[in-house]
Amino acid sequence: MLKVIVIGSGNVAQHLIKVFLQTKEVSLVQAFARKTESLLHLLPKELITNNYKALLEADVYLISVTDNAIHEVSNLLPFKNKLVVHTSGTSNINVLSTKNRNGVFYPLQTFSKDKAVDFSSIPICLEAENTSDYDTLEFLAKTISNKVYSIDSVQRSTLHVAAVFVSNFVNHMYVIGNDICQKNKIPFEILQPLIQEVATKISVLTPKEAQTGPALRNDTQTIEKHLEFLKDSNYQDIYQLLTQSIQHVAKEL
Amino acid sequence: MLKVIVIGSGNVAQHLIKVFLQTKEVSLVQAFARKTESLLHLLPKELITNNYKALLEADVYLISVTDNAIHEVSNLLPFKNKLVVHTSGTSNINVLSTKNRNGVFYPLQTFSKDKAVDFSSIPICLEAENTSDYDTLEFLAKTISNKVYSIDSVQRSTLHVAAVFVSNFVNHMYVIGNDICQKNKIPFEILQPLIQEVATKISVLTPKEAQTGPALRNDTQTIEKHLEFLKDSNYQDIYQLLTQSIQHVAKEL
Repeated sequence: MLKVIVIGSGNVAQHLIKVFLQTKEVSLVQAFARKTESLLHLLPKELITNNYKALLEADVYLISVTDNAIHEVSNLLPFKNKLVVHTSGTSNINVLSTKNRNGVFYPLQTFSKDKAVDFSSIPICLEAENTSDYDTLEFLAKTISNKVYSIDSVQRSTLHVAAVFVSNFVNHMYVIGNDICQKNKIPFEILQPLIQEVATKISVLTPKEAQTGPALRNDTQTIEKHLEFLKDSNYQDIYQLLTQSIQHVAKEL
Repeated sequence: MLKVIVIGSGNVAQHLIKVFLQTKEVSLVQAFARKTESLLHLLPKELITNNYKALLEADVYLISVTDNAIHEVSNLLPFKNKLVVHTSGTSNINVLSTKNRNGVFYPLQTFSKDKAVDFSSIPICLEAENTSDYDTLEFLAKTISNKVYSIDSVQRSTLHVAAVFVSNFVNHMYVIGNDICQKNKIPFEILQPLIQEVATKISVLTPKEAQTGPALRNDTQTIEKHLEFLKDSNYQDIYQLLTQSIQHVAKEL
């Protein structure tokens, strides 16, 4: 049994606590929260501490706190030469205090507090300073997920840029579509099946194969009509730039 | 039984033929294809014609051809005062010859030739010049779909602009994410679960509620890092413009 302690009480921390409690090969021996009440719905009182000095022995300490706090929390740990990892997609491994052996255990998904997640399909991106610690993290990751990747800090920050495009910017396209529909009294729900299909297609086709639309066809007449329609909105620039980019990529990639 | 004739042999025409053949309340009495062979895998030879003069009696004639050809095909029909509709998302109802009673029967989805579709969840957008024809089209649409909407030609062209954002531009975000991953030797599949989750979230949250990311948080440090990372690519402008737009929308909408 791998002994694990989770430090933090946010979304990711809570989801990790939940999944570790359900995992046979893992023993969640303790959790740390500044406000112990915030974890009482998940754990018995005895397993929660708000005192760094009271932290127990464990094979892996997972620091799951906001990026700005990772460094400070890792400094406050009252021990050295143990395996201490953070769970952040954006922080470098080297923000962790060097008094311990460091690593990263990053589940790549958007977590909402009230929405259950199926960890088995969530990619876990791992990094460690030495091979045996990597093996420990890999063992831990594979107990909860089928998708485990070795991703170093440079790749992870690159992955974050890509993730901004495929998630935050994609959602902004939904915001714009919704806004256009609302302003013209069209129910946005009409577009739901299309939205789902576009996302589903990407699991069987490459994004380039899946590309369609007036920009790719160079359907100048439709593009002009759409730009004219958008002329008094803030979305005209976006339409123009993305149309150019689709046409550029079609030639280059 | 509603008698229906499909004119055309493209993706949409073939999907409509298939679903009408399976629908009890509908009798597909004939289909028109310039090359009759193109429909032989779906229909017996006797039901296919390439001769306008041989078109039979029907309650609804569906013209499912490329946008540029709709007007000409509607002119070539050798009868008048019948219900003739096109299936296009982009063409106005008035491209159809006025010698017949006109309408639009537009299934809003991306169709691929080899991929089966579940029509019951595809929104069908209807328009007709008079109420009784609208009722006929509504009856027909409801035999194959649970989602039937009255959408006039102006709304339909607006809907097309919104659809470009939520499908073509969304797919382009996937293209960019994929390109960033490939150039940095990161498997794009790591982002698949995130992509699916972003699309799924939109069926329970409004797009605005679902928005997350550095732009919305105004996380200047991360934004600067990402812009620096993208400085030699064509994607820097897109990152900047969409970041500004997310921040603008957060204030306005």
